[in-house]
Amino acid sequence: MTGNRQAFSTGEFRGRVRRVQEEMGERGIDVLLIHSPENIYYLTGHQTSGYFAYQAVVLTPHSDPQLLLRYLERGNVDEYSWLPGAETWKEGDDVVEKTLDLLRAAGGQGKTIGLEKRSWFLTAAVAEGLVAGLSAHMIVDASLLVDHVRLIKSEVEVRYLRQAGAIAEVEQRAAAEAIANGVTEADVAAAVFHAGVAAGCEYTGLPHHIMSGYRYDVCHANWGPKVIRRGELVLLELYGCVERYHATQMRTISMGPPSDQVKAATDIVIAAQDAALAAMKPGASAREVDALVRAPIRKIRPDYFNRSGYSTGIGFPPRTAEWEALDFNEQDDWEIKQGMVFHMLALASGFGISETVVITDSGIECLTPSNARELLVK
Amino acid sequence: MTGNRQAFSTGEFRGRVRRVQEEMGERGIDVLLIHSPENIYYLTGHQTSGYFAYQAVVLTPHSDPQLLLRYLERGNVDEYSWLPGAETWKEGDDVVEKTLDLLRAAGGQGKTIGLEKRSWFLTAAVAEGLVAGLSAHMIVDASLLVDHVRLIKSEVEVRYLRQAGAIAEVEQRAAAEAIANGVTEADVAAAVFHAGVAAGCEYTGLPHHIMSGYRYDVCHANWGPKVIRRGELVLLELYGCVERYHATQMRTISMGPPSDQVKAATDIVIAAQDAALAAMKPGASAREVDALVRAPIRKIRPDYFNRSGYSTGIGFPPRTAEWEALDFNEQDDWEIKQGMVFHMLALASGFGISETVVITDSGIECLTPSNARELLVK
Repeated sequence: MTGNRQAFSTGEFRGRVRRVQEEMGERGIDVLLIHSPENIYYLTGHQTSGYFAYQAVVLTPHSDPQLLLRYLERGNVDEYSWLPGAETWKEGDDVVEKTLDLLRAAGGQGKTIGLEKRSWFLTAAVAEGLVAGLSAHMIVDASLLVDHVRLIKSEVEVRYLRQAGAIAEVEQRAAAEAIANGVTEADVAAAVFHAGVAAGCEYTGLPHHIMSGYRYDVCHANWGPKVIRRGELVLLELYGCVERYHATQMRTISMGPPSDQVKAATDIVIAAQDAALAAMKPGASAREVDALVRAPIRKIRPDYFNRSGYSTGIGFPPRTAEWEALDFNEQDDWEIKQGMVFHMLALASGFGISETVVITDSGIECLTPSNARELLVK
Repeated sequence: MTGNRQAFSTGEFRGRVRRVQEEMGERGIDVLLIHSPENIYYLTGHQTSGYFAYQAVVLTPHSDPQLLLRYLERGNVDEYSWLPGAETWKEGDDVVEKTLDLLRAAGGQGKTIGLEKRSWFLTAAVAEGLVAGLSAHMIVDASLLVDHVRLIKSEVEVRYLRQAGAIAEVEQRAAAEAIANGVTEADVAAAVFHAGVAAGCEYTGLPHHIMSGYRYDVCHANWGPKVIRRGELVLLELYGCVERYHATQMRTISMGPPSDQVKAATDIVIAAQDAALAAMKPGASAREVDALVRAPIRKIRPDYFNRSGYSTGIGFPPRTAEWEALDFNEQDDWEIKQGMVFHMLALASGFGISETVVITDSGIECLTPSNARELLVK
């Protein structure tokens, strides 16, 4: 390994590259240009929180990935990547020209070039510049090509996800301990961060969601100065991240005895998700699994449009997971396969619960198995 | 105020909208479509960490901003925005079609429509769809239009930035206290998060940067399991965030007496930045300020291509600041104005230092004034 902190063997990286190259072959793509930080990390190991500055990878069918990075970021290649180095750009350079130079070097006229047109980090402005500069080539949309290769996890990936799941559970327990009548959501967040980061949590793709009382309906709200009071529910969606792989666990705490309505909703939500988790195995239909969650919840929450789960893995903010590549919804059906990893969630009436699970040869292994699947009452 | 947690008066929001509408008028833009979460927040107050799902604002010269959000996110409008509501899309909807519907409602054929083509959250795929659907209109690039209006801060914005600066300083002191021979970078991060979040820090646009020893050269490295050892330097770039406004402070700790080389570099870097800060006032040339930092540092670090500062304010991950709108570099000159706020930084030989400052009528007010400007030795 060349990197001090290379997270996977060079052999594992080469296997990933080969699978992407095979997929390129099937789609007739001669040169793939990759802008998503998750996909760059997956193929090269290179990572930086400085991905706000332009970076890209050029991949052809028969050579190693070629990184293009901001000059300042080159130290990350030695630290994290199996590759010997990277092309760099400096302040004042035109990154479109730098990218076109690499693309031209990678293939002559008339090649088919794949762009990740749905990646946030290929801007419309850069895409326009590339298309203009590549007028002698065919441009195709290669969004999610690498993401789909990422769906089946290796043993080492599952090991990191298992560690991430253990961290999410540590965070839940720290939250449960910190929550009391009169403390703020921010106090709880401080305890969660302290416990999670000390247990090995990296920066997470989304900030922890800690919502009390009416803030349950402020979707994706984070902690704030709001004081937690008796009679409220506190919804906690907490993230663990190890080597950029994310696991998530959601739990709910009732400040005092829950109302009959909440108790009834809790029973329905847990039973619905239990049924879904029991149905998950290789060959199962995603839509049938989704319906096991959605149908019972719809009876008490008619506008339930949430996903009931999605693939999870590598994430850089604002992404923890692979929801665009694969999720459980009403519209699409697909087949569950061994080695896939999902964050499965269910919510109604202020109560939410979720687990991160890996598909085994016959069912699931829960990566967040320690905290009881129930409404915690404080 | 309609929002429970509306951060600015409705009058302040209306003033922002008016300034953007004036700029649209000067550029001949009839309809502005906004995708950057920072700009959406600036104009509407709406915020969510769920901006990974498509959201946009449509603005015309004479009406209030029109939000388009994922249905799940609508609760954030009541919580944070001065607007009465939002259009929403649901899972399975085509967000391009939804956006085109709003644009068509906002203006007839032949209008000039501005797109933020450099925004990460207007993907190339969506931009292509919009351009195809708007073929009867003129499309212009309106990137950074709103960002430039954001450069001059109001009193209330400076108040939040001052609070954010105080948090960054609390975090620095927590780090200094936690650092000891044999602790890990992650242990330090746990202490920083605990202190910062308890002091009111929201989720930050970038993760705290905590780099020890050789990891100084791993640009934008975050905390990890590396053990901090005697003889090393620890570079700490820590963020405070209040109402999404970011202030940053960088400090460096020497584990034991620093080498002569580090001592010399420290003197040069601090003196260079002192000179730059002293020169900052309304009317000053950004390039001249930059040169005061860059020229002396280049003598000991010839490949110093870093910015020496940039505008800071609203940020959502992976952004803490307004560096694309305004930064101190070798290429561009511009005039410093009262009410601008900058994060000013300087680094060499493992030593880094930075402050967040606001431009007053005659110089600067430092928003991170409490921690001594020196190499801290432990």
